Amino acid sequence: MNMEVEMAAPALDLEARAHGDHPHALRLWLRMLTCTQLIEKSVRTQLRAQFNTTLPRFDLMAQLERSPEGLRMNELSRRLMVTGGNVTGITDQLEAEGLVERVDVPGDRRAWRVRLTHAGQANFRAMAQAHEGWIVSAFDALDAAEINDLHRLLGQVKSRLNTSTESP
Amino acid sequence: MNMEVEMAAPALDLEARAHGDHPHALRLWLRMLTCTQLIEKSVRTQLRAQFNTTLPRFDLMAQLERSPEGLRMNELSRRLMVTGGNVTGITDQLEAEGLVERVDVPGDRRAWRVRLTHAGQANFRAMAQAHEGWIVSAFDALDAAEINDLHRLLGQVKSRLNTSTESP
Repeated sequence: MNMEVEMAAPALDLEARAHGDHPHALRLWLRMLTCTQLIEKSVRTQLRAQFNTTLPRFDLMAQLERSPEGLRMNELSRRLMVTGGNVTGITDQLEAEGLVERVDVPGDRRAWRVRLTHAGQANFRAMAQAHEGWIVSAFDALDAAEINDLHRLLGQVKSRLNTSTESP
Repeated sequence: MNMEVEMAAPALDLEARAHGDHPHALRLWLRMLTCTQLIEKSVRTQLRAQFNTTLPRFDLMAQLERSPEGLRMNELSRRLMVTGGNVTGITDQLEAEGLVERVDVPGDRRAWRVRLTHAGQANFRAMAQAHEGWIVSAFDALDAAEINDLHRLLGQVKSRLNTSTESP
C-alpha cells in the first residue's frame, strides 16, 4: 500500500519509547498503537487522494449507511465520538454537496434526522469498497490463519476491556 | 493519540460496522481500532483521575524524559505528531507548573530547548509507573505466550507497513 507519511517515519514509531526492562504488555501496547496509527494515517491519505474527503466524513457516512432511515444529530454525535459541533459542521458540508439530507421526524416538529441521499449512498459504496482494499492490503503480511489468531487474541482483550468498562 | 473524546461506551464498538460478508482483515481492523480506543480512553480517564493531567501532556513529558538534554520545539512537535500550536500551549502550561524549563541552545541566540525539571522528572516517573500498571492490566486477559504471539503478529504487520511507507 502506498502510504504518504507527512513526517519522518520514526516519529510514528512509539515503540522507541519502550525500554527492554518494560513489561512485555507495554511493548505490545506501543506496537499496537503504532500499527493502528500507521493504518489510520494511510486511510486518511488515501481518502484524501482518491476521494478528496476526510476520515470524519467517511465515518459519518458509514454511520448513516447503517441506518437507512436516518439518525438524529445527538445519536450521530454519540456514535461518532466527536463533539456535536464537529458533526454539525460535517453534516452541513455533506448536505451542501448533496450527499446527505435532513428529514423531519414525525411527531416532533423541532427534530430531524440526517440520512444519505442516493448520491451519498453511491459515493459511500465506492469509498467503502476502496477502504476495504486498503485494509486488506494493510494486513497482507499475515496469512488467513494468522489474521484469525490476531482476531481471536484481540477478542480476548476486548472482552476483558468491555467487562472492566461496564463494572462501576 | 490526540482526540479528546467523551462518550457513552457502546459507541466505541466499531465492530458493529462489520458485516459477516466483509473480509476478515476488515473485521480484524475494526476490532483492533476498538481495543486501541478502549485502552486509550482508559488511560485518559486514569491520567485525569489520578494525576489531574491529559494524554497530550503525558506524551510530551514522555518525549522529554527520553531526551534529558532537552528538545527543540520543532523536534518536539514532529515527535508528537501534533501542531506546533498545541505543543507550545502545553509547554507553556507545564512551564508555569514548574515541570519543564526552557534552556538556551549554545551558538543559536534565537533557539531554545525544552527539558524536564527535576520536579517534572519525578512527576513523570510516577505517572509512567502507574501507566505501566494500567497497560499490564488492559492485557491481563492474555497469558505471557499469548502476549508474545500478539506482539509477533503485530510485528509482521508493522514491518510491512513501514516497508510500504519507505518505498516510493
